[in-house]
Amino acid sequence: MPRQQSVSDLVSRAQNGEPRSVARLISMVEDGSAQLREVAAALAPHTGRAQVVGLTGPPGVGKSTTTSVLVKVFRERGSRVGVLAVDPSSPFSGGALLGDRVRMQDHATDSGVFIRSMATRGHLGGLASATPQALRVLDAAGCDVVLLETVGVGQSEIEVVALADTTIVLLAPGMGDGIQAAKAGILEVADLFVVNKSDREGADQTVRDLRYMLSLGEHHKRDGSVWRAPIVKTIASKASGIDDVVAKIEEHRDWMNRSGERERRRQRRAESEIEAITLEQVRARIGDVRGEDALPELAKRVVAGEIDPFTAAAELINTVSSR
Amino acid sequence: MPRQQSVSDLVSRAQNGEPRSVARLISMVEDGSAQLREVAAALAPHTGRAQVVGLTGPPGVGKSTTTSVLVKVFRERGSRVGVLAVDPSSPFSGGALLGDRVRMQDHATDSGVFIRSMATRGHLGGLASATPQALRVLDAAGCDVVLLETVGVGQSEIEVVALADTTIVLLAPGMGDGIQAAKAGILEVADLFVVNKSDREGADQTVRDLRYMLSLGEHHKRDGSVWRAPIVKTIASKASGIDDVVAKIEEHRDWMNRSGERERRRQRRAESEIEAITLEQVRARIGDVRGEDALPELAKRVVAGEIDPFTAAAELINTVSSR
Repeated sequence: MPRQQSVSDLVSRAQNGEPRSVARLISMVEDGSAQLREVAAALAPHTGRAQVVGLTGPPGVGKSTTTSVLVKVFRERGSRVGVLAVDPSSPFSGGALLGDRVRMQDHATDSGVFIRSMATRGHLGGLASATPQALRVLDAAGCDVVLLETVGVGQSEIEVVALADTTIVLLAPGMGDGIQAAKAGILEVADLFVVNKSDREGADQTVRDLRYMLSLGEHHKRDGSVWRAPIVKTIASKASGIDDVVAKIEEHRDWMNRSGERERRRQRRAESEIEAITLEQVRARIGDVRGEDALPELAKRVVAGEIDPFTAAAELINTVSSR
Repeated sequence: MPRQQSVSDLVSRAQNGEPRSVARLISMVEDGSAQLREVAAALAPHTGRAQVVGLTGPPGVGKSTTTSVLVKVFRERGSRVGVLAVDPSSPFSGGALLGDRVRMQDHATDSGVFIRSMATRGHLGGLASATPQALRVLDAAGCDVVLLETVGVGQSEIEVVALADTTIVLLAPGMGDGIQAAKAGILEVADLFVVNKSDREGADQTVRDLRYMLSLGEHHKRDGSVWRAPIVKTIASKASGIDDVVAKIEEHRDWMNRSGERERRRQRRAESEIEAITLEQVRARIGDVRGEDALPELAKRVVAGEIDPFTAAAELINTVSSR
């Protein structure tokens, strides 16, 4: 049995790109391990470098194929790459999900690529807590780029892409629901559109539909922003158009740095994260005081009509904050 | 223009059964008015008497017809009755929703009945905050029974019935989704089943299906509970079987009082409510400190890698609790 490694050991090894330590740290933040805070503290000084690129879009659009060829291109340029596939609809985590992600096997023996899938349904604190920490692990492990791919569908994909520096929305021709899905708030968050499977009939129509919808939504753009989300056509299965995608990702990164938008997004993101963790910690502390009768005692007084629930809540805040 | 009434005036008038004051107080708790806490404090000593009867079930099963005939029977017995129709899927509140609830018009001129519909979608603090307070208003207004009817569908109906002392689940024959809907956690919360529209073909089959499912789920029952949810057949549109329903409601109330289950439920409910309000207040205080740079400052340090988000959250809890 291997000796228990200290958190700082693990972080040092992860910084040197040791896959096993990277995997171990992600597991620790994902499980909400007792050492979660220690891990977070040890990671903090080594983060802030990676560009997080979110990929989202309706099922069947070719997200995982696109992710895989993007990994290939970034690797050819000498970048260290992380892949985090997040499935907010599944309760199952770990490597299993990737079993059928055949193309990812191409990179299985490449030590410059870290691939991890995470399921966040039913997760304590949900995306709010685990995903940003997993991104920090990959960041500290020296990844230049982290591809954050959403698996599955739903409103929560917006939550996922909110964690990205650059968000790619993938569409494909002939998917009636492609643009539909895009309507649901996804258009506004896209920094780059990829129309994949562009050798299929209707690709140009999809591009035109998209242009039209973007023109309608122009007033929704972030104020003062001069970035207009470009549309790139690809055939990911033939790696066609992927260089263009990478060029646009880099163009967006440069614009983000130049315009100050990168700092603004990271600031907003950190604020949301701290807020989510704060609420989660208050919830946890309430759970603790339950055992010590603080909450049951207050509830008893509310039931008896001695105090109202708002007064009880104010007392409870004092109790949980004094610990 | 009428003079501004003090909260204690309003509560006194509501206690005397003045409909306008009852309506005004519900609006105040629903809007999350600035005086919400004052209202809650003024109500507290006058609550704890009403029996809250929750009615839920799939759409089309006859919930509002059943509610209306229940009101009639309770009124005939001299009880003061409140009706709160909660639609968790709608953002529109107030009297409008009840416009088409034709049967309710029967009671429109009866001063012993208070009818109110509430929409809770997108509501600040949601059900957690507004609905229990509205129930307290009706309780303080001297209602012996408050019928809490869910409108619309979804998981949140469970949240609604969790506020009831007695929960009635309505089903109807020939609705394929009736029992299906019942599967989704609703069976466990039912204190009483009503198979409405029992003159339709398949009513006996529905009762048998229900009995079968209840026998399967027997091990899910609350421990130590000797209450077995009875099944009553009704034709609400002809007021048939309603006396049986009322008898079972009263039987359940007596059992609740005798067994101590009523106190246990009220205690649990108060605990959940205090917890929800606590989290909401922490959220609100975080919003306040944002303006004072506490949160942005912490976020800046997280972005810079000086501290981790958990440390930042701990500092934030201290900041918000010291105010």
